[in-house]
Amino acid sequence: MQNIIERLLSGDRRALARMITLIENESSAATKYLAELHQHTGKAHIIGVTGSPGAGKSTLVARLVREYRKREHKVGVVAVDPTSPFTGGAILGDRIRMMELAGDPNIFIRSMASRGNLGGLSASTRDAVRAMDAAGFDPIIIETVGTGQAEVEVMRTAQTVFVVVAPGMGDDIQAIKAGILEIADIFVVSKMDKPGADQTVAELSMMLSLDPNRRKSVWRIPIVKTSALKEQGFAELVEAAFQHHAYLLESGMMQSRTQRQVRSELQALLLQAVSKSLREAVSDEEWHELTDNITKRELDPYTVARDLEARIGLRAPQE
Amino acid sequence: MQNIIERLLSGDRRALARMITLIENESSAATKYLAELHQHTGKAHIIGVTGSPGAGKSTLVARLVREYRKREHKVGVVAVDPTSPFTGGAILGDRIRMMELAGDPNIFIRSMASRGNLGGLSASTRDAVRAMDAAGFDPIIIETVGTGQAEVEVMRTAQTVFVVVAPGMGDDIQAIKAGILEIADIFVVSKMDKPGADQTVAELSMMLSLDPNRRKSVWRIPIVKTSALKEQGFAELVEAAFQHHAYLLESGMMQSRTQRQVRSELQALLLQAVSKSLREAVSDEEWHELTDNITKRELDPYTVARDLEARIGLRAPQE
Repeated sequence: MQNIIERLLSGDRRALARMITLIENESSAATKYLAELHQHTGKAHIIGVTGSPGAGKSTLVARLVREYRKREHKVGVVAVDPTSPFTGGAILGDRIRMMELAGDPNIFIRSMASRGNLGGLSASTRDAVRAMDAAGFDPIIIETVGTGQAEVEVMRTAQTVFVVVAPGMGDDIQAIKAGILEIADIFVVSKMDKPGADQTVAELSMMLSLDPNRRKSVWRIPIVKTSALKEQGFAELVEAAFQHHAYLLESGMMQSRTQRQVRSELQALLLQAVSKSLREAVSDEEWHELTDNITKRELDPYTVARDLEARIGLRAPQE
Repeated sequence: MQNIIERLLSGDRRALARMITLIENESSAATKYLAELHQHTGKAHIIGVTGSPGAGKSTLVARLVREYRKREHKVGVVAVDPTSPFTGGAILGDRIRMMELAGDPNIFIRSMASRGNLGGLSASTRDAVRAMDAAGFDPIIIETVGTGQAEVEVMRTAQTVFVVVAPGMGDDIQAIKAGILEIADIFVVSKMDKPGADQTVAELSMMLSLDPNRRKSVWRIPIVKTSALKEQGFAELVEAAFQHHAYLLESGMMQSRTQRQVRSELQALLLQAVSKSLREAVSDEEWHELTDNITKRELDPYTVARDLEARIGLRAPQE
């Protein structure tokens, strides 16, 4: 056990890769290792990058990595986007760019499969970030598609969230309203070389000025304009990320955000334990029989739940 | 206890209103009553109506209620939309229409406050629907805003889900893709008197034809066109709802959907019990201390979770 931990802490890539595989396989060894590693974490700036498919997230992440490398950072990337070139669903050009990055020993890229349930993906992402943090990577960039519950969950692991919008996807701004706005710390308008880019910036800026929650906040969400084609805006983006990080630390927000994350992690771990106990206490067959009997109205869900609580050992709450 | 149950089963509106208040207050009496009532449920067709703000959901629900009343149905409405006129955030005209409905003893309208957490809202909606079902209301219509996780959760209580789209909100179709499509059984294009309505119908129909999941399904999602202004399409909409209900029953889908709902209800009830035990076992002060120590890396979340599991009595799962 010490072996993998010591190697990981010294920055050994193979030990890190092995750890993340254990995490993905939900191995109980992973939990023991992570418990050990936790004390060595908390150094990395954790950045989330989200946005609709086609917004240019992967290209942006690649440029961002390069920009951090110029500043001598060791960069970790966790891709939880099934359409990302990191995870294999690649446009050739993108894939080649990624491979260039992958040759650098100070860059560690890992894609996470979303085969499991909702909670599973955010738990394994959080644990993978923890392992990268312990291995000395900073920043750690998490990339997800910006739609759906799973992705919003995943984004909660990040300290600074970039929402990427491309011009000419006007409807994106509607989609953003739906759920992403509340988690954005920095907006990025990508592909500024395309027609309509200024319009997109204007719409975003209008939307931000109208948001009542934003008016209360001290942090003024910046809109950073980038163009991969013209190689513009990436230094500014890293600058904005640094500023947000500094803001989080100075304002005490980092601490409160981290505490909220810890709380939600504890809840998730408990929930996981309850599911596990349930799977052990109730066979698939019996589970099917119970739901069947409730469906037929021979049993009621409240009484069945009480019974199951007793069987997994849960102490009855005081009335 | 028998008193309120008997009165509710006989269709007494005051008993029903009282029961829903007990449900909203998370009274333990409500759970006992609902356990009793469960055997008297399963008769109502439960319809969910969702769509973006401005899509015309509330007007549609009002027309739908009228249409069902023409057919001598007793109709229940649960509004979980904070912008709905049912819940007070009303345009005057809408509110007057609702008040007309509210005078009819065979219509029961109740708005649910979303003050609680995510799980709380869907649990109380489900229980309110259960109470209305036991009181003999059929159909029961649940209205929610079509964005966000809470609303998608709430929609899982419904057997038949209407997704309402208004013309000239082209971006809506993008938003639908994001998460609502998978739960839609019937699309409604409202405001067919408006320009661009046919275009919206064409786009939806294109989107449906491209969806691979839809191709596998036997149920062909209809697109029903309505106009409140011209009083058109509401009979067809009720007809489509009847057809979907018949399809669910004949195909066996009703049983499998109900079983899935029962399963998720059991999980939610267990989760609720775990939260309750946790609140009793761990004071706010200690909880704060624990998260603080994890944040400072003096404790790790895995060990703390193990300890909490033991304290709420959860049997340790076998390794």
